[in-house]
Amino acid sequence: MKLEEEILQRITPDEEHRRFVDRVVSDLMKKVKKEISRLNLLLEARLVGSVAKDTYLPNPDIDIFIMFPPSVSRKELETIGLDIGRRVIGGEEHYAEHPYIHGKYKGLDVDLVPCYNIENPSNIKSAVDRTPFHTDFIRKNLADNQKPEVRLLKQFMKGIGVYGAEAKIQGFSGYLVELLVLKYGDFLSTVKSASEWKRGETLWLERRGDIKFNDPLIFYDPVDLTRNVASPVSIDSFSRFIYACSSYLREKDERFFFPKKKEDWKIKKIREFFKKRETAVVIVRFNRPNIVDDDLYPQIRKTEESAVNLLESHDFIVINRASHVDRHVLIAFELQSSKLPIAKRHEGPPMWIDHSKRFLEKWKGGKGLSEPFIDQGKLVVIAKREYVDAAELLRQRIKTASLGKDFKGMRFDVVSGKEVFRKDYRRIMTDLLDKRMPWEI
Amino acid sequence: MKLEEEILQRITPDEEHRRFVDRVVSDLMKKVKKEISRLNLLLEARLVGSVAKDTYLPNPDIDIFIMFPPSVSRKELETIGLDIGRRVIGGEEHYAEHPYIHGKYKGLDVDLVPCYNIENPSNIKSAVDRTPFHTDFIRKNLADNQKPEVRLLKQFMKGIGVYGAEAKIQGFSGYLVELLVLKYGDFLSTVKSASEWKRGETLWLERRGDIKFNDPLIFYDPVDLTRNVASPVSIDSFSRFIYACSSYLREKDERFFFPKKKEDWKIKKIREFFKKRETAVVIVRFNRPNIVDDDLYPQIRKTEESAVNLLESHDFIVINRASHVDRHVLIAFELQSSKLPIAKRHEGPPMWIDHSKRFLEKWKGGKGLSEPFIDQGKLVVIAKREYVDAAELLRQRIKTASLGKDFKGMRFDVVSGKEVFRKDYRRIMTDLLDKRMPWEI
Repeated sequence: MKLEEEILQRITPDEEHRRFVDRVVSDLMKKVKKEISRLNLLLEARLVGSVAKDTYLPNPDIDIFIMFPPSVSRKELETIGLDIGRRVIGGEEHYAEHPYIHGKYKGLDVDLVPCYNIENPSNIKSAVDRTPFHTDFIRKNLADNQKPEVRLLKQFMKGIGVYGAEAKIQGFSGYLVELLVLKYGDFLSTVKSASEWKRGETLWLERRGDIKFNDPLIFYDPVDLTRNVASPVSIDSFSRFIYACSSYLREKDERFFFPKKKEDWKIKKIREFFKKRETAVVIVRFNRPNIVDDDLYPQIRKTEESAVNLLESHDFIVINRASHVDRHVLIAFELQSSKLPIAKRHEGPPMWIDHSKRFLEKWKGGKGLSEPFIDQGKLVVIAKREYVDAAELLRQRIKTASLGKDFKGMRFDVVSGKEVFRKDYRRIMTDLLDKRMPWEI
Repeated sequence: MKLEEEILQRITPDEEHRRFVDRVVSDLMKKVKKEISRLNLLLEARLVGSVAKDTYLPNPDIDIFIMFPPSVSRKELETIGLDIGRRVIGGEEHYAEHPYIHGKYKGLDVDLVPCYNIENPSNIKSAVDRTPFHTDFIRKNLADNQKPEVRLLKQFMKGIGVYGAEAKIQGFSGYLVELLVLKYGDFLSTVKSASEWKRGETLWLERRGDIKFNDPLIFYDPVDLTRNVASPVSIDSFSRFIYACSSYLREKDERFFFPKKKEDWKIKKIREFFKKRETAVVIVRFNRPNIVDDDLYPQIRKTEESAVNLLESHDFIVINRASHVDRHVLIAFELQSSKLPIAKRHEGPPMWIDHSKRFLEKWKGGKGLSEPFIDQGKLVVIAKREYVDAAELLRQRIKTASLGKDFKGMRFDVVSGKEVFRKDYRRIMTDLLDKRMPWEI
């Protein structure tokens, strides 16, 4: 049997599971409608997303939209929408562009999302208003024999770690997967085409939009040509997908769909590898801000970026980095060296620039480690470095770097030297060393 | 008494010295003319240079040109010219653009230079043919009361180390000094103007030339507007002159004209300073090629530049350098560190470039210190560094760098570690540390 057929057998919901999902949906719809009629309001409840489109993988999210007439104020929509959601499922409030209720029902994740019931997707009032149109479009255009192809592509992306538009993944949404299958016909054609994608690859179905996007991948939304469905796809997810596709074509393997778990290395092995590399690791450990993943991950990236800039602007060379979230947010930097000599070359202006006078005043008479001299037409001095130790630099200056906003007030530690070989850091230290792709493990 | 007057008293040849110089000149002219008539040729002997212009400092070079009619072949001019020179003064052959005889007579340096006697300096056959025109021009245009100003400016430039167009100095020729005094009127006006010079400063007397030069300083030659008299002036000499002029205006000091000698530091002091700096020094020591300074110095610069490129292309950070010539040619580099860890970040192409396949083939399966991974859309691998030791890099690779041609076959050593603190290297190690300008010592 072909690999893809084997995979399909594992990922296609069987009759029993379908019945279970259907029951969950009908239970929830009934509850929502009951709340609506109890409130005596003219609202509509709609099942959207992968269950509505029958492209779901086992244990799907259930997405039910509570649709308000556009005449209702945004504030009312939110108050009433969340109230209905809470009564139906309990759960907790989440914020995308606007709030919704996320909860569990019979083990499945459920989103109850208030939105506006608009006639034309180009008039949307909030991003979620488009979702029912996406659902309709796919139901209308995706052939039944393409549904397994969508499931395969979803599972493939899941396996290689690029499935999902959320900030943690910055990958491909379910809707984008469906559009790709509509575009290329099936799973394997998509993989073949994607293995040849270039940065800025631009796709559409019947009509191309006019707007230029600067994203790595562009797919004009057939229900709203002003929008790029692929805008959440980061350059790394885009690259990884190309990499995976071309690797899969060379050698098909179950591990693309069901990767093995990356095991943490033993401390001894981690120690040995870093000893061999002769590099140094510095870890910044923040308490985890109490915010949802969609807020957390962009802030981690920003914080990581700022820390790299801080290190590099002080001449530390960052050769590798990793971040990890548990109770803490850990950001690790592998450095060419965590120590630098006190002496550094400090280049000033050429002699014929006015500012040269100030440079000379500042540095003449033993303020540096040398008198100012001329080299290649520029004034130069051997000066004392402000920070000779990367950990000390991070300790003293990271608070003034442009961190994610919820990291600003957060307690943090900087871990360096032998401390990085403690058990708490096995995961992130392994991430620095074990760079295998999920399908290579 | 004003400082400049004091200096003038020291540098203006007194009557006795003038009579001595005049006697040397007339002796030599007689000898040259005798040789000419002995050969029965229609040649002319001309005194040129600073003695002819009466702008010389004590113990001047005597420049006598043996002028041939343009009908004589270049080969004949050289054979006969050198022959006359050798008979007059002995001495040795030198090569500028063409050969001449350099010798000593009664303690003075003498150049006997064969050249063509042309009518118009725009028709010159070799660079030296212009010199008699320069001499004539200055004799005609420089006022008697400007001669002391020329002497002051020459001595000032000598003191600060920028006097002389030769390759060792890359500074201001005597003729250029005279033109500057003609341009600005006197010594102090020149110093004041020069303190405000900008890169590309462009000067002329009556007429500006049309040609654009890319040199730091441009002075259109009044006897040949197609030529920049200041073309030998390097960016560092140009900068140093500006620096000295503005320093002199702030505080006049005899040391600008007569600097104190830079003393070599004691080994103990050198050691202490480098210990404090926490940097490392590597010295390349070549046997001195047996060539004249005008050939040697450009080759040293080229060799130095190539070595810096070699070091930097292997990630060593050169913060400071020096070179020194005695029996050996020494080139010293102060490095942030002379050792690097074996692990380095090696960036490859993005996934969507064809070359990415080759990168992956090369690095997959444990060829580096990590598997290839994706970072910011690029393929990256932690690779093994080719050279972890700067001295080893220079030892193995400097021969393949683009050295000065006479350095190519030359025996060399690379000195590093504690070896650099040997007595032989006191001078160059002092040069790395003591960056005071001549007038600051």
